[in-house]
Amino acid sequence: MPALPVSPLAPASQPVLPRIAGVRLGGVAIGLKKNGGRDLMLAELAPGTTIAGALTRSLCSSAPVDWCRDALKGGKARAIVVNSGNSNAFTGKAGDLTVSATVKAAVSIFGCKPSEVFIASTGVIGQPLPADAIAKALPDIASDIKPTGWKDAAEAIRTTDTFAKAVTRTATIAGTKVTINGIAKGSGMIAPDMATMLAFLFTDAAIPADVLQTIVTRAVKRSFNSITVDSDTSTSDTVLFAATGQAQHKAVGDVGDKHLKDFRKAVESAMVELAQLIVRDGEGASKFVTVKVKGAASDGAARRVGLAIANSPLVKTAISGEDANWGRIVMAVGKAGEKADRDRLGISIGGVPITQGGQIVKGYDETPVARHMTGKEIDVEVDLDIGKGKATVWTCDLTHGYIDINGSYRS
Amino acid sequence: MPALPVSPLAPASQPVLPRIAGVRLGGVAIGLKKNGGRDLMLAELAPGTTIAGALTRSLCSSAPVDWCRDALKGGKARAIVVNSGNSNAFTGKAGDLTVSATVKAAVSIFGCKPSEVFIASTGVIGQPLPADAIAKALPDIASDIKPTGWKDAAEAIRTTDTFAKAVTRTATIAGTKVTINGIAKGSGMIAPDMATMLAFLFTDAAIPADVLQTIVTRAVKRSFNSITVDSDTSTSDTVLFAATGQAQHKAVGDVGDKHLKDFRKAVESAMVELAQLIVRDGEGASKFVTVKVKGAASDGAARRVGLAIANSPLVKTAISGEDANWGRIVMAVGKAGEKADRDRLGISIGGVPITQGGQIVKGYDETPVARHMTGKEIDVEVDLDIGKGKATVWTCDLTHGYIDINGSYRS
Repeated sequence: MPALPVSPLAPASQPVLPRIAGVRLGGVAIGLKKNGGRDLMLAELAPGTTIAGALTRSLCSSAPVDWCRDALKGGKARAIVVNSGNSNAFTGKAGDLTVSATVKAAVSIFGCKPSEVFIASTGVIGQPLPADAIAKALPDIASDIKPTGWKDAAEAIRTTDTFAKAVTRTATIAGTKVTINGIAKGSGMIAPDMATMLAFLFTDAAIPADVLQTIVTRAVKRSFNSITVDSDTSTSDTVLFAATGQAQHKAVGDVGDKHLKDFRKAVESAMVELAQLIVRDGEGASKFVTVKVKGAASDGAARRVGLAIANSPLVKTAISGEDANWGRIVMAVGKAGEKADRDRLGISIGGVPITQGGQIVKGYDETPVARHMTGKEIDVEVDLDIGKGKATVWTCDLTHGYIDINGSYRS
Repeated sequence: MPALPVSPLAPASQPVLPRIAGVRLGGVAIGLKKNGGRDLMLAELAPGTTIAGALTRSLCSSAPVDWCRDALKGGKARAIVVNSGNSNAFTGKAGDLTVSATVKAAVSIFGCKPSEVFIASTGVIGQPLPADAIAKALPDIASDIKPTGWKDAAEAIRTTDTFAKAVTRTATIAGTKVTINGIAKGSGMIAPDMATMLAFLFTDAAIPADVLQTIVTRAVKRSFNSITVDSDTSTSDTVLFAATGQAQHKAVGDVGDKHLKDFRKAVESAMVELAQLIVRDGEGASKFVTVKVKGAASDGAARRVGLAIANSPLVKTAISGEDANWGRIVMAVGKAGEKADRDRLGISIGGVPITQGGQIVKGYDETPVARHMTGKEIDVEVDLDIGKGKATVWTCDLTHGYIDINGSYRS
C-alpha cells in the first residue's frame, strides 16, 4: 500500500535529542523493509548500564519478547538491537535460532554476556527471518553508531508510523542534572501484520536495576498501559529503559529515596508523552481524546472504567462523528465491570456538565458541547461519585481511515 | 436519519409463527417512535405460566431491567409489556415511577400479582418516559391482542433493526408435541442511543420455573452470549422465556429428565437462530462470521478465545477487506488471556489449514482461502491443541457502514 499521509494529530515539530553519556546508537537499512528504509537499530550501552522493562502479556508472544523476559532478570545491558520489517513472531523454533544468532553476534562485538543483549522485532509475522539476517549486518552498524544517532534510530524502528516519535526530559538527582531520552513506535500495518508498540528510553542516571524496574512498572501503568487505539494487544509490545550511570550524582537508595522524586516524575512525563504520540498516530485518528475518571473505588477501577470508555466502538464512532452522544458513555461505564451507581454518575464533555446524580442536568444546553466536539482535542470527564480512585486514559476516534488502513488487501 | 437498507445478510424469507396455546399478543403504535411505527408490544400469558430469563450484567442497568430481576424470583408470569422508542434508562427515580405505573395498569387488566408483570424498554436513553405513557395505552392494546399477533409483536420491538426477527421450533416431551416461538431485536441506533438486545420466547410446554431457568441459562450461554457485533453491552439487554403449560404432556422432573432432552435441544436451537439473526442485522455487517475454537482448556476458555477473535477490530476489518490476515488471529488468541501455546496453535479459514504446530503450513497456498474470503459466510477455526474445550461464536465484520451508522450526527 502507498505511504500514509502524516497524521493530522502529529506535533508541529520534533525535538532534537541531546547526547546521553554512555549511549551510542544509530539506524541503517538492511533490506527487511520492502521500501528500502532504515530497518535496523543498534544502541550500545556503557559497561555498568542497568535496565528495566515491560513486555506484552500476550500468550502468543514473539521469540524476541521471550528472550527479553529472561534477560531482564539480569538487570544489566550492553546492547539493544531492534529491527523493523519482520516481527519474528509465530516463527516456531526458527524464531529462537534467529534470536540466538543475533545475540551471539552482539556478544562478540561488545565482549559482553548474552543476557546483556536485548532484542525487539516488529513487522510481518509468520515469515521466517533468516537466522543471520541481523547477525551479519551488526559489525557494520556497530562501527557506525554515535552519540548523536537518535534520529536514525527513531526512523529505524518505524513501520507504518506516519511520523517518528522522540521525547527528552531533564531531572535533577540530589542536585545533579540527568537526562532522559525516549523513542517509540506505534501501531502499523504490514502484511500479514499486527500492531506493535515499542519504546526505548535511556538516561545517564545511575539507578540500581530493581529500583529502575519499580519506576518503570509504575510509569508504564500511567502511560503505555493507559492508552488504547483499538483494544488489540500485540505479540511484540516492548518497553525498555536503560540507565548508563554516567552522571556523577550521589548514589540513590530505594525507590522511595527523596532524591529520586524529580527523576520519577520526569520518567513518567516522558513515557506519557511517548504514549500520547502513539495515540496521535493511531490508525485513521482524527481526534485525540482524553478520558478522566474520578470518584471510583480505586485508581485501578478508574483506569478500567476509562479504558472501557476509550475502547468502546460506539463511543469512538460518536466522537469521529462529532456527536456528543453521552448515552454511550453511560453504557461503557455500565459494562466496565467496576463498582458504579447509576444514580450517582456525572458526565462532562469539554468541561460542560451533562449529567449529575444519574440524570441529565436541568436546562442542559448542548450548544457549547457540540462546538467542543468539532475540535481535534476532546475531553471527557466521568465522576462515579462513590470513592476516591482516579485515572486518565488517552485514545483516538474510530474513523473510516481505520477501516481503510486495516481492511485493505495486503499488497 | 433515513431508514437503513435491509441487511445483505437478512434471511430470504421470514417464518409465519404458529399459535401457542396460552399466549395472546400484539403490537400497536402509541407515539414513542418518531416515525409513527408500532412501538408497544403486549403478550398475555395464561394463568399458571412459568417464566425464566437472563438480563444485562451492566452496572448501569435500566429501571425495567431492575424490575425484571426482582420479578423473576417469583417464576410466574401473566403479562410481558415491551416498548421501543424510549429505553427508560438513566432516568433516575422517574424511571422507576414509569415502571410502577405500567405494572399497576397491567395488574388491573389481568387481575394478577405485580410480580407476574414483566417490562422491557428500548430506544432513546436519558429522556424521561412520562409515567402514564404506556399505562394509559394498555387497556386498548389488551382488547386487541390475539393468538396470531406474532408479526405485529416482532415489529413493535424493533428500533433500527433492518428486518423483524422471529423463529419457531417444535419438540416432543414424552411423546407429546410442544411448540417454541421466539422474537428478538438487535442493536439499533437512536439518539442518544445504545445498542439493546431483546428476545422473548414462548412455549406451551409445562416446565417448572427453576427447571426453565436452568435451561435458559445454559442456552443463553451458547446463543446470545456467544455473539458479538461490537463488544459493547447494553443497559437493557433482556431475554425472557414463558412456558404456558397448556400442552398436555406428562409432567417433567428436574432438568436432567430424559423427556426434556429434545425440548432443551430445540430451545438452544431457537435461541442460536435468534442470536444469529441479530448478528446478520449487525450495524454495517457485510459478512457473517463463524468462529469455532477447539482444543482449549475448557469450554469457557474456548468461548473467551472465540470472543477475543470475534471482537478484535483488526480481525473484523481484515474480514471486511476480504483479507485472509491470519496473523491477526494469532494476536487475538494471544490477548484472550486464556491458556495457549504459541507452538501448538493451528488456524484454518474456509476449511483450509493455514498454520499447524505454531508455524505456517508447508507449501501453504492462499488461493482457496482468498476465494473463501470473498463470500458472505466466513468460517474461522482455531485449534489450541492443549485440551478438550470447544465453543462456537458468531460475529459480523467491521465496515464503513458501522462508522456511517454510529458516527452520523443525531438527526
